Amino acid sequence: MKSITTANLLVNGDRLNKSIASLASIGRLPNSGVKRIAYSTEDLEARTLVQQWMKELEMEVKIDAAGNIIGKYPGKNPVASALATGSHIDTVPCGGNYDGAYGVLAGLEVVRVLQENQIRLERSIEVIVFTDEEGSMIGSKAISGRVVRDPQYYRRPDGTDIQTCLKRVGGNWDKIPQARRNLEDIAAFVELHVEQGPVLESMGKQIGVIEGIVGQRRFNITVKGSANHAGTTPMQMRCDALVAASQVVLAVNQIGNTPGQQVATVGKMSVLPNAANVVPGWVEMSLDIRDLSSLHLDSLLKQLRIHLEEIAVTTNTQIRFNPCLHNEPALAEPYIQKAIALSCENLSLSYTYLPSRASHDAQEMAQITDMGMIFVPSKMGVSHDANEYTSPEQCIQGANVLLQTLIKLGKI
Amino acid sequence: MKSITTANLLVNGDRLNKSIASLASIGRLPNSGVKRIAYSTEDLEARTLVQQWMKELEMEVKIDAAGNIIGKYPGKNPVASALATGSHIDTVPCGGNYDGAYGVLAGLEVVRVLQENQIRLERSIEVIVFTDEEGSMIGSKAISGRVVRDPQYYRRPDGTDIQTCLKRVGGNWDKIPQARRNLEDIAAFVELHVEQGPVLESMGKQIGVIEGIVGQRRFNITVKGSANHAGTTPMQMRCDALVAASQVVLAVNQIGNTPGQQVATVGKMSVLPNAANVVPGWVEMSLDIRDLSSLHLDSLLKQLRIHLEEIAVTTNTQIRFNPCLHNEPALAEPYIQKAIALSCENLSLSYTYLPSRASHDAQEMAQITDMGMIFVPSKMGVSHDANEYTSPEQCIQGANVLLQTLIKLGKI
Repeated sequence: MKSITTANLLVNGDRLNKSIASLASIGRLPNSGVKRIAYSTEDLEARTLVQQWMKELEMEVKIDAAGNIIGKYPGKNPVASALATGSHIDTVPCGGNYDGAYGVLAGLEVVRVLQENQIRLERSIEVIVFTDEEGSMIGSKAISGRVVRDPQYYRRPDGTDIQTCLKRVGGNWDKIPQARRNLEDIAAFVELHVEQGPVLESMGKQIGVIEGIVGQRRFNITVKGSANHAGTTPMQMRCDALVAASQVVLAVNQIGNTPGQQVATVGKMSVLPNAANVVPGWVEMSLDIRDLSSLHLDSLLKQLRIHLEEIAVTTNTQIRFNPCLHNEPALAEPYIQKAIALSCENLSLSYTYLPSRASHDAQEMAQITDMGMIFVPSKMGVSHDANEYTSPEQCIQGANVLLQTLIKLGKI
Repeated sequence: MKSITTANLLVNGDRLNKSIASLASIGRLPNSGVKRIAYSTEDLEARTLVQQWMKELEMEVKIDAAGNIIGKYPGKNPVASALATGSHIDTVPCGGNYDGAYGVLAGLEVVRVLQENQIRLERSIEVIVFTDEEGSMIGSKAISGRVVRDPQYYRRPDGTDIQTCLKRVGGNWDKIPQARRNLEDIAAFVELHVEQGPVLESMGKQIGVIEGIVGQRRFNITVKGSANHAGTTPMQMRCDALVAASQVVLAVNQIGNTPGQQVATVGKMSVLPNAANVVPGWVEMSLDIRDLSSLHLDSLLKQLRIHLEEIAVTTNTQIRFNPCLHNEPALAEPYIQKAIALSCENLSLSYTYLPSRASHDAQEMAQITDMGMIFVPSKMGVSHDANEYTSPEQCIQGANVLLQTLIKLGKI
């Protein structure tokens, strides 16, 4: 009989992929895709199933005030702070099988393997199912203590208030502050997630070791020109807001393409009066810019603003720049990155370091504890879509990396 | 007593400006501006007033099948073809006092001056009030024989059919072909109009001698890229439709600014999915390009299409170019331009030659007879707006030029 040691422990891949398929059947849309919006009947059904699985694993299950499901697999040392993993099981209106769900189910599979091999780490392992990641991220924000205390802020698009929503999932709006956790409580948080982008696939890498979750700044840019008849107004007498706005789009794109890992996007634009025979007098557009370094973002934005001032002068328009979102980067701890990389090497999996350019619950967890993230490839980079796909093989590889990483970190 | 000759004849400026004010009181909006949409109660009231004025001048008044009001001041020679002038009295939903109305009322003032001085020209003078210039231009198109024979084409935005509309103004859809005129019938057509643009004012000229009405081409341009997550998609892996579209806007602007009198405009743009966190996958926009020379337009469009193909390649997008409007230029006859210029010189008015870059009934009239146009300045170039303004002095100057021009042309 081959001896089982924690160093050569592997997940049961078949069992993991079956659990992913089981969860994906809840909220399955008639053609394809999954709809499991936070607080919906489907979300409640999925939450019940996950809790049932946790109980079958003899985990201690509790629901905090934000409705987060916290399943605990106790460690040998009852006073050591826990090691947490997990993600979310809510989806966008037409999502896929993997975004969020994969991280939760891989966490449960890690516990299953440990449990069936009667292995306990020094630290307890918590598998957390965060509430409403796709919307407000209220679950992870409650744990980091960053929930906005105005309930109006969390009113659902359908008008339902947050008190009702949280009650539905076993939470309690009035007790939200009690959901807060800290470093003495959770030693580290490691989230496994599908990349939702094309980088790993295009590089031919099996695993992504996340350096951090990028900071994101969002601005509303307005360009004021003069609306005029497109026939009777000679070219040299125009103040064309769309000509100026087009230069802004290209300036943003240029900033995005300077050396570095930043991305910069104008995703939204509206033109007024928006008629074929009128020179545009007004353009409003979004700017979204993301990078791991706040200093680098500051420097890029400074360059961009200088460029925009030049555009305003040469096009005879007024350009305004209003901030509307500011998320600081959340860096992954180097020792966790190292543990993930080492696990990949031991498992003979290829890996690369990369930033996460999408938001995750891990960025909130980084506010209160040491954070790390593991990515597996997304086919064609597609996510938030019925065509989201990560192969069963790739799902197994990521789960094994999570298992080995938690084992390393759980030894204290 | 100073002898009155046709060479020193002048309009009665006060009377002209009073008639402009009278007509502007019909459809006057509560704050400012005039609303006299074709076929509306206000339009009917204005049409009645103009016909009454024509009858007071002992003009022969008839309504053709397209509802055009044709007032005839008979000439000495009953077999000579007529000289026509006129414009329209319908307005955009919030228009000013001058667009169209000015040309009609100056035409009537010319007749009034001739009549009170008991002067008849060799040729008859027709003052024509064209139906629905601001919408379908069905009035002048009926005279040029270019009405689309499908009544659905002329259905009003409120659903009213063209048969009902024409009946309201004394026309008859079934007899539209009978409204057609020709060169044996009308020797020349001269339209006096406010510029609706800023050129005369900026040049400090009192009168514009129109070289022709520009040809206009309109296209729908679509750019197909790939919609992708604005966070997770690295810059070099994007096919950003808005980045490509912005280059198209600048290419159009560049074409507009090459040497020549052309104007080129992207006035309309829509972006899909139009969300701050999604790289745009689709952009649709308008292109409007105008010039007096069809050959020049062809050459500019050829250059533009080559440039667009390059943009498609470098941005990894597909750019399509679909024509949706094609109006040929309508050139003014040199002898009419000369008569207008000579009239300005005799009246000591400064003038310049310029193209009309807006549409006018005169462009249809040019299809069947010799055409000329006279412009007076528009303050700040504003038109189709309550702030449209041409001073009483400027209105008088233009009407005197029309009078002297018709006298010159009417002598045969």
